[in-house]
Amino acid sequence: MSRVLVIGAGGVGVITALSLWLKRESDVSLVVRSDYDKVSEHGYTIESCDYGQLEGWRPHHIYRTVKEAAADANNKGYNYVVVTTKNIADGPADARVSSIIRPVLDQNKRLYGSQLTTHVLLVQNGINIEKEIWEEFPRDEYQYTVLSGIQLVGSTKVGTGRISQIGQDHLYCGAFDPQDGAAIQAANEFVRMYSNEGRNFAEFDPRVRYSRWKKLVYNAAINTATALVGLDVPRCLEFGVDRKSTEIEVFHPAMREIVAIAASEGIVIEEEFITMFTEITRNKVFKPSMCVDRDKSQLMELEVILGNPIRIARGNGVPTPTLSVLYNLLVLVQARLKEQKGLIKFDEKTARLVDE
Amino acid sequence: MSRVLVIGAGGVGVITALSLWLKRESDVSLVVRSDYDKVSEHGYTIESCDYGQLEGWRPHHIYRTVKEAAADANNKGYNYVVVTTKNIADGPADARVSSIIRPVLDQNKRLYGSQLTTHVLLVQNGINIEKEIWEEFPRDEYQYTVLSGIQLVGSTKVGTGRISQIGQDHLYCGAFDPQDGAAIQAANEFVRMYSNEGRNFAEFDPRVRYSRWKKLVYNAAINTATALVGLDVPRCLEFGVDRKSTEIEVFHPAMREIVAIAASEGIVIEEEFITMFTEITRNKVFKPSMCVDRDKSQLMELEVILGNPIRIARGNGVPTPTLSVLYNLLVLVQARLKEQKGLIKFDEKTARLVDE
Repeated sequence: MSRVLVIGAGGVGVITALSLWLKRESDVSLVVRSDYDKVSEHGYTIESCDYGQLEGWRPHHIYRTVKEAAADANNKGYNYVVVTTKNIADGPADARVSSIIRPVLDQNKRLYGSQLTTHVLLVQNGINIEKEIWEEFPRDEYQYTVLSGIQLVGSTKVGTGRISQIGQDHLYCGAFDPQDGAAIQAANEFVRMYSNEGRNFAEFDPRVRYSRWKKLVYNAAINTATALVGLDVPRCLEFGVDRKSTEIEVFHPAMREIVAIAASEGIVIEEEFITMFTEITRNKVFKPSMCVDRDKSQLMELEVILGNPIRIARGNGVPTPTLSVLYNLLVLVQARLKEQKGLIKFDEKTARLVDE
Repeated sequence: MSRVLVIGAGGVGVITALSLWLKRESDVSLVVRSDYDKVSEHGYTIESCDYGQLEGWRPHHIYRTVKEAAADANNKGYNYVVVTTKNIADGPADARVSSIIRPVLDQNKRLYGSQLTTHVLLVQNGINIEKEIWEEFPRDEYQYTVLSGIQLVGSTKVGTGRISQIGQDHLYCGAFDPQDGAAIQAANEFVRMYSNEGRNFAEFDPRVRYSRWKKLVYNAAINTATALVGLDVPRCLEFGVDRKSTEIEVFHPAMREIVAIAASEGIVIEEEFITMFTEITRNKVFKPSMCVDRDKSQLMELEVILGNPIRIARGNGVPTPTLSVLYNLLVLVQARLKEQKGLIKFDEKTARLVDE
């Protein structure tokens, strides 16, 4: 039986752990940071469109930190490490994904050397998110694969130990490296372990990079713009000049630039997604993740959603007039959030950033 | 002795009224809306870098509304109507400049017909602000001129009836219509009535359109961007990628687009202003007016600062990739402010604007 460690106990992480637990094909551990005491004592209260109402539910093991989870693995280690936290590449060093998973990878290596392969599944937004893992964990030293998870699940933590899921869970899981047979096998295996027929939906993703660029058509254009103006998507559409300017002058040009960057990487995103993604949230009041983060004064996934695409565009000589303005304005909003959190300091007397 | 009606009793309006009053060459009336009771009883408390500390100061007359001012003018009328309110072209109809000044123009016309010329001095930001006046008051029916006031004065209302002025007052006054001899004469006359030697600084502006486009280089690029991200200018500069991206990727491209639009109108703005305007507020924590308005949930002068230049660009075939993104995002922020004020309604059930 595979041992799975799920990191991040927000709306996505808890439903992920629950789905695995219900299938009964894996031993499920969950790292629960802020809600640990409550969940440890009373378990989770979950209202799920896929699984109904659950009271006092717990996975097989819960831990306060990844370090504790790694230590408690004893001589068993973990086969899968599922990361469902936000990917804030420009955040504090200890919040980077490579820092978060290091205790498990080190422990697995200590226990088994090359006998156990750790499958790191990143259920996160953005492009090039696997690069950081490959850079930080040399593949001749650590035995691992990196898997891509793209998840659509309308699930939110609505209180301490309380989860509400309103949209059916769809998970697309594949290998970042299309040449890596072990990764492809592990992704297929995970899909099997995860699928609860008639409830959730899980599928092997044979074209991870295509899927990620496709999702960026939405996220790099619409998610970002809503975060700048602090409005849900239908308001953005309706509040435009003649109810048209937002899509014509902001969303569509930004999306076309993403399609062009993807094309420069040899990935063809069909034009129809531009219309589809504009329409998809026209009729339902919905705030994308970056807008929600901004509203809650949390750091946004800016670099993996928009910074990385723009850096790829620069490398490939693709012009990005719209995305660059969105990005460089959001860099300032992100810095405003960082200053609020004390992550950066600005001296009003000298009017300069304080180097630390 | 000229009779002057100053409309708008914020930081600009009160210092304008005071400067005229001190020169003793005009009879000064001030429309004081929200602070009327306090000012009527106790006068103004003013701390001014130009004029020192004043307690209990009042102009010759104060009025609660323009209508009352017009009625009280009796058989005298007003020679100058100085408008120092914000110019919110997309705000409620009764807050448009033409609506604000209508009672005085109508009263002057009733009293004198073509015997009295009303000089309407717009001390406001933006381009094409005179067009609304010309459209609303046919020149064969009303006898008037429209004068341009560009004022630099670090003056703020800091409390009820309390004004703090920290920067020397500079006023540039000219005629919107360079062919209008009466307007040119009136502008020169106003400069004389306004100048307090050794204290403030007032000058006749022979090139109004040039001056306004020049000021837009700052306002359409920097003022707008700060309003989108909610940060003062030095923070915007310092928080950019490598402390450089804000000026290179946002401010400078936006400013160059304004220079190009001005050029398409036959007005040459020297390139050096791009650097000068970037540097001018680098070392001092300063929030431009649109950013302050956004912070206070007040409507911004978006249309006269950015909407009008973009419409001119479209008419002249000048591309504005940067300004268009800034504008179309700010249209959404402005709509968010309008919704907060109840000026527009959005139905969350249908996800549509409610037509009224």
